[in-house]
Formats: sequence, structure tokens, C-alpha cells
Amino acid sequence: MPRYKITIEYDGQDFHGWQRQNKLKTIQGELETALYKFCGEKIKVFGAGRTDTGVHALAQVAHLDVDKNKLEDKLNKLGKLTLGLNYYLTRSTSNKISVLNTKKVKDSFHARFSALSRSYKYTILNSKSPSPLLRDTTWRIPKKLDENLMKNAASLMEGKHDFSAFRSIDCQSKSPIKTIKKIEVKKIKDLIYIKVIANSFLMSQVRIIAGTLVEIGLKKKTEENIIKALKNGKRSLAGPTAPAHALVLEKIIY
Amino acid sequence: MPRYKITIEYDGQDFHGWQRQNKLKTIQGELETALYKFCGEKIKVFGAGRTDTGVHALAQVAHLDVDKNKLEDKLNKLGKLTLGLNYYLTRSTSNKISVLNTKKVKDSFHARFSALSRSYKYTILNSKSPSPLLRDTTWRIPKKLDENLMKNAASLMEGKHDFSAFRSIDCQSKSPIKTIKKIEVKKIKDLIYIKVIANSFLMSQVRIIAGTLVEIGLKKKTEENIIKALKNGKRSLAGPTAPAHALVLEKIIY
Repeated sequence: MPRYKITIEYDGQDFHGWQRQNKLKTIQGELETALYKFCGEKIKVFGAGRTDTGVHALAQVAHLDVDKNKLEDKLNKLGKLTLGLNYYLTRSTSNKISVLNTKKVKDSFHARFSALSRSYKYTILNSKSPSPLLRDTTWRIPKKLDENLMKNAASLMEGKHDFSAFRSIDCQSKSPIKTIKKIEVKKIKDLIYIKVIANSFLMSQVRIIAGTLVEIGLKKKTEENIIKALKNGKRSLAGPTAPAHALVLEKIIY
Repeated sequence: MPRYKITIEYDGQDFHGWQRQNKLKTIQGELETALYKFCGEKIKVFGAGRTDTGVHALAQVAHLDVDKNKLEDKLNKLGKLTLGLNYYLTRSTSNKISVLNTKKVKDSFHARFSALSRSYKYTILNSKSPSPLLRDTTWRIPKKLDENLMKNAASLMEGKHDFSAFRSIDCQSKSPIKTIKKIEVKKIKDLIYIKVIANSFLMSQVRIIAGTLVEIGLKKKTEENIIKALKNGKRSLAGPTAPAHALVLEKIIY
């Protein structure tokens, strides 16, 4: 059966995250429904990673295997896979999920296991006044953040560490040990971007890193807290879980 | 009575434009309601210019005069004017209007008549696939646009011209003669920005310019059409009115 790699953009606001769940709207669920409408087949979609409820993606990746005959039959009738899926997806989700492209790949390709790194971007609006045009995609912090303190603190979390203090209580990963390749803190006008790159993440790890860096920027926490949190794994030493709506899965590298 | 200059950001999606209208939600109407709630006075807000239904603003400007005693009484109780207005606005509009700042100005300042120039930005997404994260703020054109043709055509509309072909049928301006200081077409990845700067505009002028430039980029219209449109004022020679949701009033210079 031919395997396809698909790249998907979504506005996570209306969905209960990536993973299929009974009776709840999820990205995976909507994709599988669209595939069923398109091919008349129940096809499983394998994602590169789960995103939490409310988290967006600029380029999530998944793979799927389709019965050649059934698909080709449809493709002859309906045009390309990308267009075919989007035909159903844009209608069923009010344009909140879109397939950016689809590509035939080797059977050895696996969306999750072949991925070399994942890159997330968290966006903070550091402004006294709310921004109507950025309200759905940024976390607004009204008090002045010191981005230099945030940069220094971010570098402490790079590398291989026990991130027990930076995982959700619901996290099912066997090991809390993860290697963060890079955490970049960049300020442009009143926006502060936190970009985090790693091979894989614990549940809510990026949001807890963002929440911790905000407390550092507000001088509510110090570098000392981070060093201790990485050492003894106490969740309370890290900051709060930053809100989901300001987080975007930006890129997956294979 | 002290005069205040206020700068306002809004997501135009839910509103019937800037101007107050009976029984319809408008930006001016919501501002005046918030002012009334804040000061207990019916105060008129004078905007720098009207924006159409659905058009956004990053920095619309308005002025208002308040009774010193009533306002100061309130300010002593509730804090600053910006915070006071936002307290009511964010609630009544679900964060879709926000006052960015307020400033006491001389009586001679007039939001509309003191303005030297207004700058609008129109954003086109030139992509085969829909973008869930940009759907509310861009106009998607699936077919490839030639941005060099668009740049050349844009320069023809700069300067002083009779823009009869580039105004809405509802436009109430006495004269169709306007001077456009600059039209900048800039492509960044699959986004094309059209920035238009002028002292003042006709109704829907920027959107008709954007619609015309898109037809140029698609090779449906030529520079010849623009030259003729500017000469004889026939609306049909210009392009369609581009959708409102991709237009933002960016800046007003005094």
C-alpha cells in the first residue's frame, strides 16, 4: 500500500488536541473523517506528535497508508489528495484545518519515529493594553519583562536534563529525561518569542518552560529556581503552565 | 474642557465599520458606550477616518472632550482613562476593541483634520492551500501572482489622480481627486503586502486598488487598463473590491 506524508496547518482553538477521542473534536479525528469521506475507507493517520488542546500547528506532519486501487479511483475522479482532503476538511472544520501538501514516501518513513527534531514557538505580548488583533495567538503579560534575564535562564534548560519539574501531571512518558537542542528568546517590539527545539518533548513541557521564563522575566523566580528544579524535579519550583493558545508547532525536521 | 487623543486597535470582524449607526455594532458606538459607562456623560468621539465593515485597525486615532470635573472625579476612583475605557470595552466587545493609549492634547488638535497621512496595509496569501492561522486576516489567491507586474502597476497609481474608477458606489466624497503618496508591494514567502499611504482616501479605494493589483498579478488586467481607468473613471476598468477582512489601518501621522 502506498504511504503518504501529509503536512497540516491548524488553528487549535476549537479542538481537543491532536489525538483521536470519542465524541470530542480532535485534529486526528477530523483528518480521519475527511479521509473516509474522500476514499470510503477507514484509514488511520499517524501524527509526528500530539499537540495539547488549543495548541496550533503551522506544519504538523502525519503519515497514512491507502489502498492503491481505492485511492487511485478517487484521485481520478476528484483530483489530488491535498485538494480532496481540503474539500472535506475546510467544510467540516470551518477552515480551521488545512492540508498544506501531501507526498508519496517510502514505506520506511514514519511520521513519529523518523522525525529528527520538533520546533515550537511560544509568543508573549508584553503590553499594558490588550491587542484585539493578537488576542488569539499571544499570551499578554502587562508588566515589563526583562528579556535578558529570560535569555540567560533559557540557556540553563538547554541540553540533556531530567525535566520532571517541567511535565504535566498527565504526562505518560516513561522517562523524564529529554535533550533540548535550543531555546531562543527573541524580542521584537512588544512581542517576545520563545522558540524551543528538541527531538521530543514531555507533555506540556514547552508551556511550562514558557511559564517559567515569564516568572524569571518578572523577577518572581531566579536562575537558582531553575537549577534546583532540574536537579530535584519538584514541579512547584518551575513556573505555571502557560496558556495553550499562544503555542504553535512550527516545524518538524526529518 | 480638556481634549484627549486616543489610539485604538480593533478586530473589525464583528462590527459595521467605524461610524456610529442605529442598532448596529460599530467601533465609534462601542467607544461612546464605554465612555458613558466610565464618565456617566454622553461624549462624542471624533475619528480620524471611517473604516468599512470588517476592516481592522492597529492604530486608529480619535479625539474627545470631557468635562474636567466629572472625568477627574472618575479618574481618582478608577485610575487612568486607558484602563477605565478598556475595563468596559474588553467586556462589551469580547476583547475586540482596545484603547492602546490616551493623551491630553491641545484644543487645536483634531483627529481628522490634523492628520497628515494615513497608512493602510492589505495582505494577500498567495498559496494553493488555505491557511487556518491566517484565514481571518489575509485574502487567499490560489493562483500564482506575478509581484513584479503588481509593483510596476502600483507605481502608476501613485501621485495625484482622478480616482473615480476606484471608489465605492456609496462614496460620499465631493471630489474624486486624491493624491497617493506611496503604494508599496512587498513579497515575503507566500505573503504579499500592499501598503498604501495618502492624506485621505475615497470609500473602498484601498480595497479596489488591491483588487486591481491582484488582477494585474494574475494577468487578467494590464497596465493599459489602469492608465485608462485613471483617465476616464470607468469603475469596470479597475478590479473588484478586495475583501475587507485582509485590510488594516496601520498608522495615522500628525
